[in-house]
Amino acid sequence: MAAWDVDKGFQNSTGPDVNPDLDTERKTASFSVERLTNILDGGAENTQIRRKVNAVLQSDPEFSRENQYFHSQNERYEGAVRRSLYLSKKMDEMGWTADGPEQKYCYRALGDDLAFSVHNVFMKSILGLGTDKQIAKWIPLAEKHYIAGTYAQTELGHGTYLRGLETTATFDVTTQEFILNTPKISAMKWWPGDLGRTATHAVVFAQLYIKGKCYGIHPFVMQIRSLQDHSPAPGVTVGDIGPKMNFAQTDNGYLMLRNVRIPKESMLSRFSQILPDGQYIKQGSEKINYLTMVVVRVYLIRTEILTILMKACTIAVRYSVVRRQSELKPGGPESKILDYQTQQQKLLPQVATAYAFHFLCDYLQEVFDRGYAETKEGKFDLLPELHALASGMKVIASDFSSAGVEVCRRACGGHGYSLLSGLPSLFTKVVASCTYEGENTVLLLQTARFLVKCLGAVKVGQPLPSSVAYLSSTSSGKCGAQEKRDFLNPDVYTAAYKQRAFRMVRNAAIKIHSLIQSGTPQHEAWNLCSVQLARSAMAHSHYIVVQNFVNALEKFEKEFHIQRVLKHLCDLFALHGIVSNMGDFLKTGHLSGKQSDMVTESYLDLLALVRPDAVPLVDAFDFSDANLNSAIGCYDGHAYERLFEWAKKSPTNNQQDNQTFEKYLKPLFRNALSKL
Amino acid sequence: MAAWDVDKGFQNSTGPDVNPDLDTERKTASFSVERLTNILDGGAENTQIRRKVNAVLQSDPEFSRENQYFHSQNERYEGAVRRSLYLSKKMDEMGWTADGPEQKYCYRALGDDLAFSVHNVFMKSILGLGTDKQIAKWIPLAEKHYIAGTYAQTELGHGTYLRGLETTATFDVTTQEFILNTPKISAMKWWPGDLGRTATHAVVFAQLYIKGKCYGIHPFVMQIRSLQDHSPAPGVTVGDIGPKMNFAQTDNGYLMLRNVRIPKESMLSRFSQILPDGQYIKQGSEKINYLTMVVVRVYLIRTEILTILMKACTIAVRYSVVRRQSELKPGGPESKILDYQTQQQKLLPQVATAYAFHFLCDYLQEVFDRGYAETKEGKFDLLPELHALASGMKVIASDFSSAGVEVCRRACGGHGYSLLSGLPSLFTKVVASCTYEGENTVLLLQTARFLVKCLGAVKVGQPLPSSVAYLSSTSSGKCGAQEKRDFLNPDVYTAAYKQRAFRMVRNAAIKIHSLIQSGTPQHEAWNLCSVQLARSAMAHSHYIVVQNFVNALEKFEKEFHIQRVLKHLCDLFALHGIVSNMGDFLKTGHLSGKQSDMVTESYLDLLALVRPDAVPLVDAFDFSDANLNSAIGCYDGHAYERLFEWAKKSPTNNQQDNQTFEKYLKPLFRNALSKL
Repeated sequence: MAAWDVDKGFQNSTGPDVNPDLDTERKTASFSVERLTNILDGGAENTQIRRKVNAVLQSDPEFSRENQYFHSQNERYEGAVRRSLYLSKKMDEMGWTADGPEQKYCYRALGDDLAFSVHNVFMKSILGLGTDKQIAKWIPLAEKHYIAGTYAQTELGHGTYLRGLETTATFDVTTQEFILNTPKISAMKWWPGDLGRTATHAVVFAQLYIKGKCYGIHPFVMQIRSLQDHSPAPGVTVGDIGPKMNFAQTDNGYLMLRNVRIPKESMLSRFSQILPDGQYIKQGSEKINYLTMVVVRVYLIRTEILTILMKACTIAVRYSVVRRQSELKPGGPESKILDYQTQQQKLLPQVATAYAFHFLCDYLQEVFDRGYAETKEGKFDLLPELHALASGMKVIASDFSSAGVEVCRRACGGHGYSLLSGLPSLFTKVVASCTYEGENTVLLLQTARFLVKCLGAVKVGQPLPSSVAYLSSTSSGKCGAQEKRDFLNPDVYTAAYKQRAFRMVRNAAIKIHSLIQSGTPQHEAWNLCSVQLARSAMAHSHYIVVQNFVNALEKFEKEFHIQRVLKHLCDLFALHGIVSNMGDFLKTGHLSGKQSDMVTESYLDLLALVRPDAVPLVDAFDFSDANLNSAIGCYDGHAYERLFEWAKKSPTNNQQDNQTFEKYLKPLFRNALSKL
Repeated sequence: MAAWDVDKGFQNSTGPDVNPDLDTERKTASFSVERLTNILDGGAENTQIRRKVNAVLQSDPEFSRENQYFHSQNERYEGAVRRSLYLSKKMDEMGWTADGPEQKYCYRALGDDLAFSVHNVFMKSILGLGTDKQIAKWIPLAEKHYIAGTYAQTELGHGTYLRGLETTATFDVTTQEFILNTPKISAMKWWPGDLGRTATHAVVFAQLYIKGKCYGIHPFVMQIRSLQDHSPAPGVTVGDIGPKMNFAQTDNGYLMLRNVRIPKESMLSRFSQILPDGQYIKQGSEKINYLTMVVVRVYLIRTEILTILMKACTIAVRYSVVRRQSELKPGGPESKILDYQTQQQKLLPQVATAYAFHFLCDYLQEVFDRGYAETKEGKFDLLPELHALASGMKVIASDFSSAGVEVCRRACGGHGYSLLSGLPSLFTKVVASCTYEGENTVLLLQTARFLVKCLGAVKVGQPLPSSVAYLSSTSSGKCGAQEKRDFLNPDVYTAAYKQRAFRMVRNAAIKIHSLIQSGTPQHEAWNLCSVQLARSAMAHSHYIVVQNFVNALEKFEKEFHIQRVLKHLCDLFALHGIVSNMGDFLKTGHLSGKQSDMVTESYLDLLALVRPDAVPLVDAFDFSDANLNSAIGCYDGHAYERLFEWAKKSPTNNQQDNQTFEKYLKPLFRNALSKL
């Protein structure tokens, strides 16, 4: 990108030259960026594959993200459908299979612009819940997109609380059919993706009734729109729920059913079936299927949450060395804003958080692979722990990442408010993860329930699963740190986190117990402690993330430079967490007031220590400019030039679209002509 | 709104019947809602005027906000221009003058949908900075919209740091003209509202050069577009900066100047003029003008920040008694989500915050009216205090309100993510206030600088201005609370806030001092303490808000029920702040670990105490359904019905616009026809 010339303006938009303010930052990296990228990818080979996939997709104009920020909801949707179908062809062409390594990199590159995400859930639910015959019928059609499916569970009035779903499926013995109904407005299916404008079929969850008796929630696969003209099937009302904070490319929909009759074979019957006389038979264990749902939460941490945080960090850090504002030294040149301590304190902990979650994902993958294998063999003992772990980790990842992306956005000042920076859409997308796949507060309370149970188990001498084993230790020692550098010792800070979590869980449990003792009904006692329970589940989750980051450092013992920079980030993540939640650590007396000052000083020192590596650390995430789609975060650092280039293309600058002057302004301005 | 019928669907959208779950809440108010509304309006008479204005505007279809969430940026802009011009006519028609009481209520009702907001700043700056002759020339034209103005200060590369602006205005003695230039891309004017597609004129801020010498930033009024055909003036490049997170109705623009010559009379010359020979003369004091800029920050707290928080609270609280989810008591009916402690803990502190800021605005209005009067008389002593106060209050109001609105939004689960809830746009609008009119971190550091200076003044025995007088006291006592109810004593919690602020400011000052003592240059010492300085300015601001809320309670001594409920809110605001920043209070030893548990318990008790009044407290804000423009927050509580009604109108359901099926899906689905 050539320098901007006052007379010739802005010459060419791509070129090898990099803004010197950004270039300098790359020359002083304390570690090999390429090596860190390989680590993040899980090996150099993966880096290669990822880059190849990225290159192939980016060289294809069909996948261009240019002008995306100007598109309407309709345009985004149409583009997503077009691209998704084209991608299927492209993958065939390239020989990339659905279970090959390339697929996830396609998603990394194009995820925001694809449709059919819930179509995939439709298929997974048939595979998980259907009989072999049902799988044979539906899957081949769905795989080729000859039908489009959706997963219709959530209702207008019911999200997380599945038992409360109100849609009914009544078995009619005489006709051997189910009659599906939306008995009231709150029972309307609402939110399913791909439902609004795409799906021809749906897996619908409904309360099963046989001869007046309710058997609970069951899945039914049914046609909802014509394959010929896409008109709604008889008795079906279906449409799009309209604009959302993000996800314009996704057609979230509504579905209302009025006496819709579907054949007996429509119930997905791997785990329960109905005999012709209406007899209901339960069979097998759904637990493996339940684990699949839990695994979704783990999967989305990396694909839907962490990637976004990494992108936001990349944009904000690069912009913060290109942006100069005010003087640090009176009379000196204007300073890079990343040289201000306040800016470092905003951004660097987010970079550290991104690395913390990366290693968390590695750990969770391991744990859940093991859990899946065991569960498949019929051992279900791990399930409660895995559920609690997945819930807690989904919450902390979505909560911290949403906050972190917003910090990055605001740290870019006014330009962070422009859609062209890419940051607003990163925020509006990631923040959805606090709500979907289990609302965060609800999930925290589920984790808390498990933790309280574990404390109970300890009392009666039962052993605890590994991720919560620390709850059985009773050590209550005070922190032994004597000076600020002691807080760079992982043993010191992990002990502090452990103490904090243990105390908070225990205190909540004690409070419940004493309320019950004094006559409060159990459910009321639980509610009266729920704020503290939720916080204690968060403290527990926080401890796990810190401890895991510390453990991960060990893997790099032979790579001094990598280990050193990761250790700084681990320390920074841990101390930032202490400083931000200081009350919890002080309250129990684990830290003294004096020690809290030491932590703060040690934390501030770390900012200065990490600062020189800030750009290399985000470069290592290795997003291409197209991945980032940000006018201010590109690799070459020409933020202002690109903002101007992109703004000029905005439809608001299209004179044909601007009738406002002719219609409203011209008649008024005419009056000034004679006076000026 | 009639009950929803499974066969007939949804009948009429307005009617007297209210969702019984919401209706019940209104029957148990512990105070007179109407009286509280009058208090918020500053008297029953104002309530009347406001309601009249609202009624007049809402009965006029020109001001309808229907379908607003479906509009493109172009449509929003055109609508805003149309409505603004129509409003001028309407106001004339109604006899509402520009300085009458109705004007602000017009803005309250329509603010999000109006254009020309910076046109008003254009006028104000001419009135403040222009000579009488300049005022006589421009103001009459601007008032009638015969010209449209903008205020072009911010540049691509410079926001808050005004001295760094790079646009130049060089005085040419030979032609008696100024030559205006944008010397590099970072000097391009960027962000001014009304610039993108509307303005014909601009007040442009530029570095004044005479005979090679720079005289600093000066204002110039100049024409930028033709009044006849709106084409850019010679040498001018102007356009719209494109899509933003919100403010689609505002045409924020860019402006590039290349050797644009404007006559000598173009410099706004109330405070400085240039003689024909190039001699530069400074005259009078700009300080009163400076105060005007500071006052803007105070003004926007009520109009741009607080109103949004109040709306979000109204929507979220009403929805939370209409939404039922899960069982509190096993086997019981599903519970209103506001009966969960975790939901109370999210929403009720936001309601308390809204009331805290309301009384803060009353106080600031008083202080600044007084300050303005004194400054006008030539007494400038108050200026530094007023600047620090306005900065701190703008930060705390925008920061807390942005966080609060987002809490409200997330507390509404999935529906809070739909634009139709109204909550996403409330968030994306309010959060801009953290950045505009002085970026929050920058402002905090300015406040901190004043606070540190005050500590210095104390040392040499100088008296302190009233809002910071507490910094001269040296009391360092510990909190005397013995049991949880002691924390409902305002003396106890205000003392805690005072202590916290004092200690934090003092410790930051000590750290700077000791760094300097040990050889660190002053500017570096400042930077190394800036995180702590910013936090201490926040603690100071927090104290002021709490203390002011306590003071405000005294006014209601004769109104028991009102005072009681406001006292609960004041307590809740104060204790929520302590619980959320517990580390600060524990660190200095002001609170003990045991006392921190008491505060928490007292805080949780308050949630249950305020819960029954939650709906009446938000009803008292008295927003009409049209004001809220929320499918889930309406007065009648028919959230689900309205979501469905509104969604059906979405353009995504317009079959004509949906070519996706015909183009992409039909050819694929055809293949399934023979197989199903």
